[in-house]
Amino acid sequence: MPAVRRRAAKSFVDLIKPGMRVALTTHVNADGDGCGSVVALWHLLMERSVRAAITNPTPFPDRYRFLLEGADRADKTGEAVKHLQRADAVVVTDISDLGRLGHLGRVIERVTVPVVCIDHHASEGVLPDGPRLVDPAACATGELIYDLAQTAGWTITLLAARALYVAIMTDTGGFRFSNTTPRALKVAAHLLAHGLDPEDTYSNVYANESEGRIRLIAEVLDTLVVEREYGLAWVTVPPGALERHGLQADDLEGVVEYPRSLRDVKLALLFRPLANGRVKVSFRSKGSVDSASLAESFGGGGHRKAAGASIAGDMAAVQALVLAAARQLCARRS
Amino acid sequence: MPAVRRRAAKSFVDLIKPGMRVALTTHVNADGDGCGSVVALWHLLMERSVRAAITNPTPFPDRYRFLLEGADRADKTGEAVKHLQRADAVVVTDISDLGRLGHLGRVIERVTVPVVCIDHHASEGVLPDGPRLVDPAACATGELIYDLAQTAGWTITLLAARALYVAIMTDTGGFRFSNTTPRALKVAAHLLAHGLDPEDTYSNVYANESEGRIRLIAEVLDTLVVEREYGLAWVTVPPGALERHGLQADDLEGVVEYPRSLRDVKLALLFRPLANGRVKVSFRSKGSVDSASLAESFGGGGHRKAAGASIAGDMAAVQALVLAAARQLCARRS
Repeated sequence: MPAVRRRAAKSFVDLIKPGMRVALTTHVNADGDGCGSVVALWHLLMERSVRAAITNPTPFPDRYRFLLEGADRADKTGEAVKHLQRADAVVVTDISDLGRLGHLGRVIERVTVPVVCIDHHASEGVLPDGPRLVDPAACATGELIYDLAQTAGWTITLLAARALYVAIMTDTGGFRFSNTTPRALKVAAHLLAHGLDPEDTYSNVYANESEGRIRLIAEVLDTLVVEREYGLAWVTVPPGALERHGLQADDLEGVVEYPRSLRDVKLALLFRPLANGRVKVSFRSKGSVDSASLAESFGGGGHRKAAGASIAGDMAAVQALVLAAARQLCARRS
Repeated sequence: MPAVRRRAAKSFVDLIKPGMRVALTTHVNADGDGCGSVVALWHLLMERSVRAAITNPTPFPDRYRFLLEGADRADKTGEAVKHLQRADAVVVTDISDLGRLGHLGRVIERVTVPVVCIDHHASEGVLPDGPRLVDPAACATGELIYDLAQTAGWTITLLAARALYVAIMTDTGGFRFSNTTPRALKVAAHLLAHGLDPEDTYSNVYANESEGRIRLIAEVLDTLVVEREYGLAWVTVPPGALERHGLQADDLEGVVEYPRSLRDVKLALLFRPLANGRVKVSFRSKGSVDSASLAESFGGGGHRKAAGASIAGDMAAVQALVLAAARQLCARRS
């Protein structure tokens, strides 16, 4: 474990006293890392006789609700403001600033107690003062909480181990993104050794799809076009498809991976009509094709392998424009 | 590492001498564990100045061909019989008997040199004599080859590490099946530390889909029926769909996971018409629903969470029969 983490963990541990009230929060629309982090901390602190409460800005997501098993009274999201205002310490996880704390940002900005931050993002924090356990080298905030528990010598119970495992598993995309470091796998191994069933844990998170999402995937895959000569493939979300299946834009997550998963495809695109007369384009590439540069040429941005842009125009016009540029980019590379 | 593995590994190492010819083989239609195992062994043995050759019964699958990078002359599958007959030792990986070695079974049965077996399946072997490194507690044959290299003190090069990582990653279903033991993750961590990129390695294996398979998934998902009151969901492969997309039955792998992934679904089924006027049914369950008992009642078999049966009758008749039994089973459990 990096020494900086050990020192930071110690400053957090020094703060913790039995009987004190600690509010645990994370960003709006908590993901697996946010949910796993607050649940694990809740267990760890309750074991130290701390009166912990989960005080997220938005409701605990259905997909991660199973993590609250054995922590029935943990989630105080409905009364977050009250709990934050009377806490002796606040712990902000998986985010280093006030930006995505929703209506709780203004509350936390004004508290006079220490505000601890545990996060693996690189962004500069603007949180009120308090211990910082921030390291972008960690695969997930859950990895840092594991380090904290190890440094402090705190027992990791089965339910805390499961929450941390879910944090690491989801933030590494099921151990397949490039942040799957050797250490991420080693920590996951240690967490599993607490008696978790990896298959059940996986199912709990991922076997929780809505019928609408499966129907949406079928509809979108039906639109697949492959241009083998360019190594290009794209899909289009039919107008009104999200509404028809009672879904949100979030539910399209991962759908662009289907065209990207095609053999010999170097660039995959997903087109989605927006309500404001624009079209959202998601770019995903493999190998040396640069998604970000393409997205940037349309006023968007992102990373080399994953980028996006929102472009004015109707679907036909935007597709014509973007596909012409995409063909050019792919032809240049091959 | 279990002591039995260390002893078995030693008996293999004792056999290996520089300059000798060693034929490496695995079962027909090699999977990621079979391919990864023979490729890793090839690298390990070539480093010891052994003249190794990969002699599989069926061609090296396209999906895993990237593993042969840096091992251009390794694959002698086309002349497998010749290489097996003149080898000083044969290593059979990922299978303990002659059953699935195709036309090579009869060749290997008659060789007079030691036949090494490295396998993680529980089946009793009927291979000719030779060192045995067999342990069903290993998540993959790749884990046993890692143990072998560790015991022998053999250097694991980057390309050997990648082959072993692919073996473990694929046989654990991307680290999500129940054979994802703490040790599996620890070994994977150590292999990654050789400098692999986990995301590239994942993409190499899984971003290699055929266009036909994506179109098949879309077609099959279009047939989804959900019976929420029973926690039952099923999909049906349209007649002639595989042929239309130039696919094999293998290409349906994983498709039944879509209905199984639905929230509140306890039992998922996939129906596929067979050429012989029968219908193949795949059963996948979650929680306490027993897929095997259902499959067995139709003359099939399998495990608690994954089973199958081939049933005489046309699609409508088989669906009526199986769904009636499935409803009864699910109603009983809830």
